[in-house]
Amino acid sequence: MRTKFQQGLDDLKQRLLEMGGMAESAIEMASGAYLRRDASLCEKVFSREKEINAFERRIDELALDLLAMQQPMAVDLRFVVAVLKINADLERVGDQAVNIAQRTLDMLNQSPVDIPVDIARMAGTVSTMVRRALESFLSAHAEVAEAVLEMDNIVDRMKDEGFVALVSRMKSDPERTQQYLDALLITRNLERVADHATNIAEDVIFWVRGADVRHGAQLEIRSQSQNAEREV
Amino acid sequence: MRTKFQQGLDDLKQRLLEMGGMAESAIEMASGAYLRRDASLCEKVFSREKEINAFERRIDELALDLLAMQQPMAVDLRFVVAVLKINADLERVGDQAVNIAQRTLDMLNQSPVDIPVDIARMAGTVSTMVRRALESFLSAHAEVAEAVLEMDNIVDRMKDEGFVALVSRMKSDPERTQQYLDALLITRNLERVADHATNIAEDVIFWVRGADVRHGAQLEIRSQSQNAEREV
Repeated sequence: MRTKFQQGLDDLKQRLLEMGGMAESAIEMASGAYLRRDASLCEKVFSREKEINAFERRIDELALDLLAMQQPMAVDLRFVVAVLKINADLERVGDQAVNIAQRTLDMLNQSPVDIPVDIARMAGTVSTMVRRALESFLSAHAEVAEAVLEMDNIVDRMKDEGFVALVSRMKSDPERTQQYLDALLITRNLERVADHATNIAEDVIFWVRGADVRHGAQLEIRSQSQNAEREV
Repeated sequence: MRTKFQQGLDDLKQRLLEMGGMAESAIEMASGAYLRRDASLCEKVFSREKEINAFERRIDELALDLLAMQQPMAVDLRFVVAVLKINADLERVGDQAVNIAQRTLDMLNQSPVDIPVDIARMAGTVSTMVRRALESFLSAHAEVAEAVLEMDNIVDRMKDEGFVALVSRMKSDPERTQQYLDALLITRNLERVADHATNIAEDVIFWVRGADVRHGAQLEIRSQSQNAEREV
């Protein structure tokens, strides 16, 4: 029964990483759609988000089944709860990809303008945050998760600088306000993705620190589970 | 032991409702600060949000303790998982209140302008959504939760209409772009609160529908727990 439980945990972890890959690709497609003015990529984002929503429910059900049938203790329980929370954040990363794609479609209806914000760099930083947050989950490394928290400040600064630059353009070039506004809203969508990456990193720290107290830090989840097993 | 478990569930429910009250008041204070141009209310929002963050952690720990020590089954398990999810959404309602208060402070540094959006009405609708979502949680009524989902469309429409009206003003009155933009961003913060209320309503439906399948709909949580008890 415990072996089956271990398989269940591994399976849950694997599914969540797949979900993370889907969310990451949604954001990359949405940023690419904006940067390359590609309407067909927007459509791909919309269908990817539907897949993400369906996958979220499957992971929730898997986690609930594990809780109901195996009744995990201590660090394993914290792990399953972290999965539930991370799952919800990844689903919302998908929502943000949709928002970016919608703003991109709005922008494609209008004449192109020069945007005084490096959205490519911001999107790259945000994607890195999501990837690192998932890596910290995979490796159970609180340090990697903490690095994600620090990157959030960089993205916040980019967003604030973008705000000032874009408001200034709106004032000097009011005819193109809507294009600048689309870009401004995209910077805010990206910042929300950074917030979700931050939430994920915090959930990883919560899970690993629970482990810290009981078993010492930075153990792989498999060995953590074995420790928890001994504790039971 | 089951009685202690029942007390634990009741206690968890009570705490989550307190958390809901705090989140609701944060949004009402933030909207009031904007509508009455009141900087001191903004400060109250900032300190309220700190309380909300601390309360979120306490509820998470309570829920984890219940899962670890009582190992609930079936509908009770779904209830505890719903509490974890609703708790995260309420914490983010607090974040939105902070965003609104920050935009309000920005606005107070500038000359007042006429805003072509009924933000008071939008804020009222959003507060009602949060309150109804919490009521649906208190009464375990999926119908009340479903009404919240419908209200989300109204708020989305308000946000879209506000967008068009405010972009138009920015173009015709570019000197005051920043004030219009503050209002526009506040409409988006309110819409995000409506999204969180929607998430809460969905979590209630998820919890109650789990109950539906097994025991028939619209039972009070206490009687649901008793039913679950018989099932075990």
